[in-house]
Amino acid sequence: MTWVGASSEPLLPAVGPPPTERSDAARNRARVLEVARGLVAAEGVAGITMDRVATESGVGKGTVFRRFGSRAGLLRALLDDTEREFQGRFLSGPPPLGPGAPPLERLVAFGRERIAVLSTQSELLRASAVPDENHYAVPARRVAALHVATLLRQAEVPGDVPVLAFELLAVLEAILTAPPGARPPIDRLADGWEQLVRSLDRPV
Amino acid sequence: MTWVGASSEPLLPAVGPPPTERSDAARNRARVLEVARGLVAAEGVAGITMDRVATESGVGKGTVFRRFGSRAGLLRALLDDTEREFQGRFLSGPPPLGPGAPPLERLVAFGRERIAVLSTQSELLRASAVPDENHYAVPARRVAALHVATLLRQAEVPGDVPVLAFELLAVLEAILTAPPGARPPIDRLADGWEQLVRSLDRPV
Repeated sequence: MTWVGASSEPLLPAVGPPPTERSDAARNRARVLEVARGLVAAEGVAGITMDRVATESGVGKGTVFRRFGSRAGLLRALLDDTEREFQGRFLSGPPPLGPGAPPLERLVAFGRERIAVLSTQSELLRASAVPDENHYAVPARRVAALHVATLLRQAEVPGDVPVLAFELLAVLEAILTAPPGARPPIDRLADGWEQLVRSLDRPV
Repeated sequence: MTWVGASSEPLLPAVGPPPTERSDAARNRARVLEVARGLVAAEGVAGITMDRVATESGVGKGTVFRRFGSRAGLLRALLDDTEREFQGRFLSGPPPLGPGAPPLERLVAFGRERIAVLSTQSELLRASAVPDENHYAVPARRVAALHVATLLRQAEVPGDVPVLAFELLAVLEAILTAPPGARPPIDRLADGWEQLVRSLDRPV
């Protein structure tokens, strides 16, 4: 059986560490991605052009092209970077998302943050010409499924935990598969997530 | 806002009535589809060949080709037929799936049956070369979302009912988007569905 959540393999980062590189190159890369992330947050993916990213990060346009290849390449790098940053926050960041809060509060926070991250990721996926959505979703889902299953066990939610984790992740990932405009607003999705998760915790 | 469940439009069949046709042609069509459905249930989609369907339904092979065009065309017709048959059962069939049972029991039954139907539909989708999965999923989801929202309201589940309906449907539709072998077995998915739905009904 290969579905995620049934496995007991160690929890590894889905997208791996950033490639090793010279420190000035690494700084440039980080600056470009930070600027790109800010533009997406403020204006959506449409706000990103190679010119603008180069100007606002103070990195030469030629360098930006050499490093990322194309606008689609930059968007794919941003997709990976966003995922890695999110994994860092839920695995080792501050509570309630990271360790230290009660497991159920972490699960509520995980879904709320995941919904926000996936609403950005779904826009990046559509714009970055990733050949197959599963290319992104499968490794990202593996880490998320193990995290959700772990929190359900810690919260002592009864039932078939790997299956519940699979089903709860499907709730979050509906954002990736729903066409734009074909889903509820993310704040209402987040409240719905919280209701589902808190319901599971009530005594039978 | 165009997401399904937010709408108050009347509940219409997703795939429409079967086309009008001469009664012997209609009988042949129904016989071919019945045989094809039986083969899928017994052996999966791989069990369907045009030769076999023609022989076992007693309809000439030429007629089967004229009517359905190709094996992929037959599988698409089976996809529509299965959806229409399922809609008939949950809208007007016997309880607990159809009217007459308490709303929460209908919702439990709906998810259990939907999971079984979608595990067949996902196999048909992959084999029938439907150009876009949404081609099937969007109209089918519209009817299902209205049905789930109606039952949640009747069961007096508190909260944002259209959003809960959207999120619960995502649980069922994970079967369509998960690669084969990348999901839990359907009996465990069905038990997980029942736990989620019954949890929502418990007093806060």
